[in-house]
Amino acid sequence: MRKIHVIGIGAGDPDHLTLQAVKAFGDTDVFFILGKGEEKVDLVALRRGMLDAHRPDGAYRVVEARDPERDRKAGGADYSPAVDDWRGRRADIYERLIAEELRAEETGAFLVWGDPALYDSTIGILEEVLARGSVEFDYAVVPGISSVSALAARHRTGLNRVARPVQITTGRRLADEGFPDGVDDVVVMLDARQAFGRFADRDDAGIYEIYWGAYIGTPDEILVSGPLAEAAPRIERLRAEARARKGWIMDTYLLRRRGDG
Amino acid sequence: MRKIHVIGIGAGDPDHLTLQAVKAFGDTDVFFILGKGEEKVDLVALRRGMLDAHRPDGAYRVVEARDPERDRKAGGADYSPAVDDWRGRRADIYERLIAEELRAEETGAFLVWGDPALYDSTIGILEEVLARGSVEFDYAVVPGISSVSALAARHRTGLNRVARPVQITTGRRLADEGFPDGVDDVVVMLDARQAFGRFADRDDAGIYEIYWGAYIGTPDEILVSGPLAEAAPRIERLRAEARARKGWIMDTYLLRRRGDG
Ligand SMILES: C[S@@+](CC[C@H](N)C(=O)[O-])C[C@H]1O[C@@H](n2cnc3c(N)ncnc32)[C@H](O)[C@@H]1O
Ligand SMILES: C[S@@+](CC[C@H](N)C(=O)[O-])C[C@H]1O[C@@H](n2cnc3c(N)ncnc32)[C@H](O)[C@@H]1O
Repeated sequence: MRKIHVIGIGAGDPDHLTLQAVKAFGDTDVFFILGKGEEKVDLVALRRGMLDAHRPDGAYRVVEARDPERDRKAGGADYSPAVDDWRGRRADIYERLIAEELRAEETGAFLVWGDPALYDSTIGILEEVLARGSVEFDYAVVPGISSVSALAARHRTGLNRVARPVQITTGRRLADEGFPDGVDDVVVMLDARQAFGRFADRDDAGIYEIYWGAYIGTPDEILVSGPLAEAAPRIERLRAEARARKGWIMDTYLLRRRGDG
Repeated sequence: MRKIHVIGIGAGDPDHLTLQAVKAFGDTDVFFILGKGEEKVDLVALRRGMLDAHRPDGAYRVVEARDPERDRKAGGADYSPAVDDWRGRRADIYERLIAEELRAEETGAFLVWGDPALYDSTIGILEEVLARGSVEFDYAVVPGISSVSALAARHRTGLNRVARPVQITTGRRLADEGFPDGVDDVVVMLDARQAFGRFADRDDAGIYEIYWGAYIGTPDEILVSGPLAEAAPRIERLRAEARARKGWIMDTYLLRRRGDG
């Protein structure tokens, strides 16, 4: 039976790797590295560097493939038919990779950014491939340091306040639905539109604080924190500059509403 | 200037340690290990085992202390005066430990369960000690694999569904306030009262699923998942048995409501 590791590799710092991940690296015959296109070459390089560091024996194969483009025009992240189709096309690729590039009894690995449990589709796609029934394999998941944990660590803050909840959501949700009910701490990922801006504009009472980070854990890391009204224009400027300079950006933030607690 | 590492050590599996944590171990003169009383001896042993594994040189000191008991009768986790008082007493201890056990220019480490960003007070206490101004130090946080990430990995599931939010909350909140608004995926920690039970009792339509884990990552690990109505009685039984056998339990779960997505 083929075996597959889904390995969370952390969110940018090669030292985010866990000992469990390093062991899984050691036990892998074929590494699957799926790129998302031009802008993410740095991220592919990081994975390559991890292989050099943790598999000095070189006794493995690397299979690189391109993730299909998601059809953003069809409605973006919330539009389920487009997502389903995209997932289907990714399942086609994963199915083919596993069937053709991994021999029986061999072990493959998918290196997943951050923690495979957060806004990542690898597990869902492998389940879809299994459900199709054309290729058999067993798989296990190695948890990783998420960009959320990395953000909090770099800002030396907790995500929740004592006995209070925290919500993790997307920029789109925050923009469309406003600050969620029932929580005062919200972590925002996948925010292409800087949804925090609308809260800054209205925050005359100074009830919001932000802890923002871009390229966390990498040499390009940028961190900004403070009262939202002051921090927001700074973040917008730094974000635009960094994005222009590097051609792409990944950023996350914790938006904290002054609560009763 | 004294230096302090706040090191997330993962949620039970010694291989949850990150390379960054191992490096911080290597750079520490004094390890502070705070126990919570009898029931957590296993957890103190795990930390000791990590020291043996990652500091074979033995050139370090260990300072064990007892965390003050929280006055649970005064209202539990939500009752702020009791929490503040408890935090104050802990700050007294940390302040004394740092001042008396760590020499100038030395580096200390607090080994924090899981990820220091989730339901842990170490960062808050260090900030309080710094605010008092009687002892100076600089500190950095090393993120760790939380029990939430470990739970999801062991169940091979994501925490969120595509483009949807996830909330992390406490058993008390879930019991008092019901299933939170606006989310369909809720991770519950610190649940001494098995708050999932009330949802099981009412779940005639079968809309809830649960992914539960106890002692995740340790040799005692127990995992149960499935439709809530079926899984809940099994979890209640296994939980009671395990708790009786070991004298304490730590468990977490993801409660998932069948959504429109
Ligand atoms: C598709 S999600 C994947 C998240 C990943 N599984 C994790 O655990 O961090 C990508 C989003 O994660 C966030 N992200 C990932 N790595 C980051 C980093 N190093 N710095 C800041 N944000 C990051 C950004 O919000 C980005 O839009
Ligand atoms: C005070 S909180 C600390 C959480 C920790 N900082 C983390 O990141 O996991 C303790 C709670 O975490 C959860 N927990 C911690 N370790 C666990 C494990 N190995 N298995 C199951 N639950 C765990 C339980 O819900 C427990 O009540």
